[in-house]
Amino acid sequence: MEMNIALLPGDGIGPEVIAQAVKVVKAVGEKFGHRISFEEAPVGAVAIDQTGDPYPDATHEVCLRGDAVLFGAIGDPKYDNDPKAKVRPEQGLLLMRQKLGLFANVRPTFTFPSLVHKSPLKLERVDGVDFVFFRELTGGVYFGEPRGRNEQGTKAFDTNVYSKEEITRLARMGFEAAQKRRKHLTCVDKANVMATSRLWRETVQELAPEYPDVKVEYEFVDAVAMRLIQWPKAYDVLITENLFGDILTDEASVISGSMGLMPSASLGIDIKLFEPIHGSYPQAAGKDIANPLATVLSAAMMFEYAFDLKEEAQAISDVVNKSLTEGVVTEDIAEGGKAYKTSEVGDWLAANI
Amino acid sequence: MEMNIALLPGDGIGPEVIAQAVKVVKAVGEKFGHRISFEEAPVGAVAIDQTGDPYPDATHEVCLRGDAVLFGAIGDPKYDNDPKAKVRPEQGLLLMRQKLGLFANVRPTFTFPSLVHKSPLKLERVDGVDFVFFRELTGGVYFGEPRGRNEQGTKAFDTNVYSKEEITRLARMGFEAAQKRRKHLTCVDKANVMATSRLWRETVQELAPEYPDVKVEYEFVDAVAMRLIQWPKAYDVLITENLFGDILTDEASVISGSMGLMPSASLGIDIKLFEPIHGSYPQAAGKDIANPLATVLSAAMMFEYAFDLKEEAQAISDVVNKSLTEGVVTEDIAEGGKAYKTSEVGDWLAANI
Ligand SMILES: CC(C)[C@H](C(=O)O)[C@@H](O)C(=O)O
Ligand SMILES: CC(C)[C@H](C(=O)O)[C@@H](O)C(=O)O
Repeated sequence: MEMNIALLPGDGIGPEVIAQAVKVVKAVGEKFGHRISFEEAPVGAVAIDQTGDPYPDATHEVCLRGDAVLFGAIGDPKYDNDPKAKVRPEQGLLLMRQKLGLFANVRPTFTFPSLVHKSPLKLERVDGVDFVFFRELTGGVYFGEPRGRNEQGTKAFDTNVYSKEEITRLARMGFEAAQKRRKHLTCVDKANVMATSRLWRETVQELAPEYPDVKVEYEFVDAVAMRLIQWPKAYDVLITENLFGDILTDEASVISGSMGLMPSASLGIDIKLFEPIHGSYPQAAGKDIANPLATVLSAAMMFEYAFDLKEEAQAISDVVNKSLTEGVVTEDIAEGGKAYKTSEVGDWLAANI
Repeated sequence: MEMNIALLPGDGIGPEVIAQAVKVVKAVGEKFGHRISFEEAPVGAVAIDQTGDPYPDATHEVCLRGDAVLFGAIGDPKYDNDPKAKVRPEQGLLLMRQKLGLFANVRPTFTFPSLVHKSPLKLERVDGVDFVFFRELTGGVYFGEPRGRNEQGTKAFDTNVYSKEEITRLARMGFEAAQKRRKHLTCVDKANVMATSRLWRETVQELAPEYPDVKVEYEFVDAVAMRLIQWPKAYDVLITENLFGDILTDEASVISGSMGLMPSASLGIDIKLFEPIHGSYPQAAGKDIANPLATVLSAAMMFEYAFDLKEEAQAISDVVNKSLTEGVVTEDIAEGGKAYKTSEVGDWLAANI
């Protein structure tokens, strides 16, 4: 198969972890006989530095041309504490999501037996956890208008907005995923306060009869924030709006003890993007110490979800598991054992595909 | 001292836990020679059932007349899954907060040595946790206008809005609390996405020089959702907006293993309200099994914060600790030992003041 992959390394540790994923993808290509080409483009702070624009048109073109997008991370602290900065790296991320129509962010949470002891939660609470969030990614308060300040600058406002269509297409993905899993869907909202949440709940209630095999539950976002920590095994598929999803998927990411390993997919109608869930981790940038496994596993998701190549995806999961068992890992999970460099882990994975 | 306490039992287990707090407050009154009177009024689903209004004017009058308000809980599931219900019990809570001007919700998280083993977190992560949230309670998306639906009902919207004044008065409370504690303030926002959050951050940055002894940090809400679980001991005082506070304080409440014991205060300019952080727990209502300790400890907070009576507050904390040590507790924390009824725990506490 021929595939052209758009590479968006982004900021911080992004370039380092993407480089390792590229090594692994190339190795997969050689082993399975695929012709894989890469086209790289800047996004985020690096793009601002180069072009003034966090998501340049040229980068957008590269994404549209690609058969899939592999993305690193965005964010640079030099922009964080400057509330008046006109352009921020994260705008690149948001523009990218919006322009590529990536409306569903798929975030699985599962455990690796060799890492679950690193969870902040007690073993019996977390062992065997297996749920997946479908976070709406192109709507809500992230894009709603109007937003901004009053004339004197003494008042600020944001708008959260959702249409039935936006909710429906995300919810259907959740229902379908639940049908293939444990048939349990949780709709997370704040219907006791927010008008948007009431539309979410109403829409999901209307769809539910089409999926009679799926048990649907409705929970408030504050309750889920608790229960994710108390009883994470109670969940199967969760659907929610953009901002709640931002908070809850990050909360969920620390449960398994393997945050540095968690991949994600962002799906649109035509375009599919894959990225590690961790951020740009600027403190580690350039040090060759970042854990590349989440990005490598995102590449595995890419083979499965974008190209329907399950064997290739499995080969990557297998080699990642092998690296964990054999202790070829970065310092964040080395625990007294030898800590390998980011690039060494990448080389080892590619060599062992 | 003479004090008139407005009692708002509310829904679900509210009346049962408030009844125990009243027993304890009366016992404190007798012991310390205070003349304490109570005036009760309905709020929430019971108020809707009685008057059609979840926060009737008569109830508001009772609160205004009171020297402090002791509140149970609000919420009834019969309203939850009816997105079209015109009046919902939670509106009573929101109206009450708004009309009484309760702009700061103070939510401490701390551990009880005898209960910390019940935490879902590993002991070393959570033992000795001690932080307090100041959640803004009368602004943000809870009250922002416009909110609602488009004409066809296919689109819903909410508005999040904050003024510099609203942020300033809440932030000052946080700074002052930090000065009396470990001098560490965390401002929680989503300044990389939301205009309101950027005003929060800007305002806190402007205030910070007035509190040179306080170390201020700015963290995104999604990062805090993670770090609260990973490193809860890293926090001292956290300030945040209404919706983020709703989610994060509930998340925080499960950390210590003693959710059923956590009190809270909601403070305005003149009015001070005290309530357990748990909800109306409808499944347990009427069964005399609910844990009354959070409400009893909220009464302790009332003596301290509303009447500046520290000894009285201490007497309540002491008797609560005694009940824990001696195992006079409800089934949720009995763990194989005898489970006492709600009313039995209340009687025991009052008798042992
Ligand atoms: C960087 C930020 C804008 C982004 C978001 O809030 O969506 C991030 O937290 C994420 O979850 O991908
Ligand atoms: C019941 C609900 C409206 C309320 C809120 O969201 O504020 C509750 O969750 C709380 O935190 O007191």
